[in-house]
Amino acid sequence: MEKRTQDYTGEILKIIRSNTSPAVMCSRLEDYHANDLADVMPELTVQERCKLYRILDMDMLSDIFEYTDSDNAAEYLKEIDVKKGAAILSRMETDALVEVLHKIDKAKKRLLLDLMDDEVRHDIEVIASFDDDEIGSKMTTNCIIIRENLTVKQAMSSLVEQAAKNDNISTLFVVTEQQKFYGAIDLKDLIIARQDRALEDLVVTSYPYVYAEEDIDDCIEKLKDYSEDSVPVLDNDNRLLGVITSANIIDLVDDEMGEDYAMFAGLTAEEDLKEPLKESMKKRMPWLIVLLGLGMVVSSVVGVFEHVVTQLPIIMAFQSLILDMAGNVGTQSLAVTIRVLMDESLTGKQKVELVFKEMKIGLCNGGLLGILSFAVIGLYIYLFKGKTLLFSYAVSGCIGVALLLAMLISSAVGTCIPLFFKKINIDPAVASGPLITTVNDLVAVVTYYGLGWILLIQVLHLAG
Amino acid sequence: MEKRTQDYTGEILKIIRSNTSPAVMCSRLEDYHANDLADVMPELTVQERCKLYRILDMDMLSDIFEYTDSDNAAEYLKEIDVKKGAAILSRMETDALVEVLHKIDKAKKRLLLDLMDDEVRHDIEVIASFDDDEIGSKMTTNCIIIRENLTVKQAMSSLVEQAAKNDNISTLFVVTEQQKFYGAIDLKDLIIARQDRALEDLVVTSYPYVYAEEDIDDCIEKLKDYSEDSVPVLDNDNRLLGVITSANIIDLVDDEMGEDYAMFAGLTAEEDLKEPLKESMKKRMPWLIVLLGLGMVVSSVVGVFEHVVTQLPIIMAFQSLILDMAGNVGTQSLAVTIRVLMDESLTGKQKVELVFKEMKIGLCNGGLLGILSFAVIGLYIYLFKGKTLLFSYAVSGCIGVALLLAMLISSAVGTCIPLFFKKINIDPAVASGPLITTVNDLVAVVTYYGLGWILLIQVLHLAG
Repeated sequence: MEKRTQDYTGEILKIIRSNTSPAVMCSRLEDYHANDLADVMPELTVQERCKLYRILDMDMLSDIFEYTDSDNAAEYLKEIDVKKGAAILSRMETDALVEVLHKIDKAKKRLLLDLMDDEVRHDIEVIASFDDDEIGSKMTTNCIIIRENLTVKQAMSSLVEQAAKNDNISTLFVVTEQQKFYGAIDLKDLIIARQDRALEDLVVTSYPYVYAEEDIDDCIEKLKDYSEDSVPVLDNDNRLLGVITSANIIDLVDDEMGEDYAMFAGLTAEEDLKEPLKESMKKRMPWLIVLLGLGMVVSSVVGVFEHVVTQLPIIMAFQSLILDMAGNVGTQSLAVTIRVLMDESLTGKQKVELVFKEMKIGLCNGGLLGILSFAVIGLYIYLFKGKTLLFSYAVSGCIGVALLLAMLISSAVGTCIPLFFKKINIDPAVASGPLITTVNDLVAVVTYYGLGWILLIQVLHLAG
Repeated sequence: MEKRTQDYTGEILKIIRSNTSPAVMCSRLEDYHANDLADVMPELTVQERCKLYRILDMDMLSDIFEYTDSDNAAEYLKEIDVKKGAAILSRMETDALVEVLHKIDKAKKRLLLDLMDDEVRHDIEVIASFDDDEIGSKMTTNCIIIRENLTVKQAMSSLVEQAAKNDNISTLFVVTEQQKFYGAIDLKDLIIARQDRALEDLVVTSYPYVYAEEDIDDCIEKLKDYSEDSVPVLDNDNRLLGVITSANIIDLVDDEMGEDYAMFAGLTAEEDLKEPLKESMKKRMPWLIVLLGLGMVVSSVVGVFEHVVTQLPIIMAFQSLILDMAGNVGTQSLAVTIRVLMDESLTGKQKVELVFKEMKIGLCNGGLLGILSFAVIGLYIYLFKGKTLLFSYAVSGCIGVALLLAMLISSAVGTCIPLFFKKINIDPAVASGPLITTVNDLVAVVTYYGLGWILLIQVLHLAG
């Protein structure tokens, strides 16, 4: 298949840098999607961007700002006079607008807010009143709200009236006289309904909703499951405040997974390319210090077995093998458990089942790999280390058994620790990683050297 | 805040198990969201489900099937006669329908397909013709398509006509006489437009689109970035085949991240709770065998340094510390690199910058932790192992330097390997994990024991 990249950057740059009249340039640029124009913005000089601010109309500029990340948007605002800036911001989705305002210094923010409509200012205040981890902070107030006692015709004209200022029209939300959420109407149903039909027949009263103060982590699964275009957000008195759109949900899912992924790898938050060195160090240091501390604990336990190694130096070479495998198996169980916990709420019985299932997998995989390493490592020691056959297979037998035990216990640990953290309401992805590694390392070291000492030195009296 | 769980399972079960008449039961159940009804289905007995199939209307049943996972849906179909089953399936979104058909045995599938409309059958064939990793396999054919030469009024009536059978109406797609994709109309613009206005003015010709044969991994970022409610999918002749809705995008983002997360943890695919033991073993075994093999390589390298350990057994206790820290740092760099690669396409210069940035972080963090372990471990050996102060700090100095070097090199390895895999078009998340661990282990072992041998034994002539 021929390559058809849709990279319009070059084309757009060419238009902006050409010498055509403002009117022609504007109509040409309007042929591009706001997202593509937003992508070009950082590559322009300040002069070129200023040209754009003059040429494009307000709606186009506010669209571009919506597709721009908030750091950049705050930068661009410095190049625009306050009045125009306020006009652009006012036209944005409220959640995006609030994010940009976060990045602007206080004095300028005051100025911008003063220039906005009362209505916009009110919406900003509502959204800004919620914490970052509450779902209310991510909603947009941009939605169609109608009263319950209308006819189909009245509802339709109310929609036409509101549509000019609101983007999310595919669902209409119905409220009572006290502004309490009553239900939702699918625009499709409204469009195909006969004009004289009662609106009541069209209202879906089972439409899902969330409360603004709910934790994002708690309701994101619900939002995903219902897969509606927009889900209403209510205050504690069941009044409709705004909606979470599917674009919001995509961002939230992305963020949530990105964070879990980062934490799983021992970072305190997601990093990006442009981050300054100090920031990145700060995000990685906490885990590394914890891990170093825990590593020292493991080392001091290994130190206890110094005499085993002095008598039988060969077994020390395989320590890394046992520890690594225990770590790998623990990580697998951890990842499965975190994912299962994220998607579903488990009953006690299911949790026990999960632990047993993981242990069964650990046992079976451990058995297979134990036998494999018994065979291979025995041969290796016999051939390359010049030991007797008995000695070689005694050592590799010890390694095989230690591997089996370590894998079995690591599976259990890798499942129980995240379950425990979930129970005490700590995010399992943050807390589990280092603890599991340490516990598994300790278990593996004790099992391995303990077995070596008892079996090889005490029972078989091997040395050398 | 009082607890307001929206768990309707109990309520719904009560209604189904009550003795009310079919008509009343149907109208009561219609007050619930199809997603909530779908959640209840697995908890019902076969008899109760059969009652539901008789009581609920086709649209409600097909909605419930859309919210049911395809394995369960295939099970339920066995309880329904083929004719009714075909009617329910025909009303589903085509992508969900195709997924259910995948789980049904051939004979029954033939039967079901024969009972469906030509149109539905055609849509199924189109979607089924794409591979699982092509975006075409995830689209729905459920969208509003209008011809370009209509007036606003004609477009509106064409919409009303099509809306009855199509759910995704928020964007109308405009095609030429040859069915080629021409542009899109935001329903909002159509609704507020004057009836006599030319449709042409409303058409956005810069609307984003994808080709059905594009790889999901390649276009998922684009789909996310444009954040439109639905993005058209074209065939190679630019004819409109269907759309990717935002609900599809949410599923895709979720899948993509879940897969990366799983692969990062050494699983070949995401697992869930109900999976049989054999399946789970199969998903985990491949990595474990690779890791065991690589672990044996590391062990044989450690074996080379047996004589160092025999002369200076104390340094063996800290091997796990150095290896673990190298592994942790490598994992952090790997995670950052994979995330950066997923979100952005980097220029060569940016890649070099990324490697240097990671190495700088490795150097700084390594320096800090190196000094920390020099101080702490020296004290530990002096106090608890009964060695001289010189001996203690010579050993801990060697550990500190080895830690710094290992962390520096691990950062570089953790960044370069995923960049390399990306370059040769292998998913970095699959391939990087075990290779990075092994390379880092090898580097750490050689650095640590090498330094120990040269500094402590050759230069300082320490032993014991």
